[in-house]
Amino acid sequence: MAKERLRKGTAAKRVPLDLKGRIWIDGKEGTFLGYGRVILLERIQEYGSITKAARSMEMSYRHAWELVDSMNRQASRPLVESATGGRGGGGARLTEEGESAIALFRRFYEDFQAFLADEGKALSLS
Amino acid sequence: MAKERLRKGTAAKRVPLDLKGRIWIDGKEGTFLGYGRVILLERIQEYGSITKAARSMEMSYRHAWELVDSMNRQASRPLVESATGGRGGGGARLTEEGESAIALFRRFYEDFQAFLADEGKALSLS
Repeated sequence: MAKERLRKGTAAKRVPLDLKGRIWIDGKEGTFLGYGRVILLERIQEYGSITKAARSMEMSYRHAWELVDSMNRQASRPLVESATGGRGGGGARLTEEGESAIALFRRFYEDFQAFLADEGKALSLS
Repeated sequence: MAKERLRKGTAAKRVPLDLKGRIWIDGKEGTFLGYGRVILLERIQEYGSITKAARSMEMSYRHAWELVDSMNRQASRPLVESATGGRGGGGARLTEEGESAIALFRRFYEDFQAFLADEGKALSLS
């Protein structure tokens, strides 16, 4: 109660708002690129393997493969390709298109973080 | 196939990306204001009743009341108050704080739509 009265007395104090958001990019089948998908692409780039990338994210291989397949189907050119063989065996590598997709989303994501920070300064409630 | 070949031949053509997002404002208990909550506030303003506002959104009275209660608890001053009596009976009306909350979120939302539109022009993938 005392705290409440104190706050009413200091009208000039602006409580910062905790602005939150989530962004993604849709393709023809729904989500094309989102934060998790981009992390997966980065891990595939790092490990050269969908299996290892999935494990590093505590994700099943099946789920990771489905995400990669979804991205590949929706891009004009595949983002990930087999490095040595078929599904499951061998490694995987990011294509140039895959690297562009990471860069694109990272830029969008950074711009969005900057947008949230700017808005947080500009907006206030009482 | 013909369409695919055509697209590869016209390298200058940039396919617009379908950038998507969702925004909300967190308070001390989690979500404070989001799109649905603001629509609810606007309907309360319009109908002068939580019951009627809830019905217009095909939402249960209980859920609407809980959302209002959550917003009231997290704001420094209540956004909605009883117009004539206790819970369930009588009407409800938006306070000045409630009107500010709507304006604040609407501005945030509009800025975000503009941000998405701007980003959509600036970003492209191959």
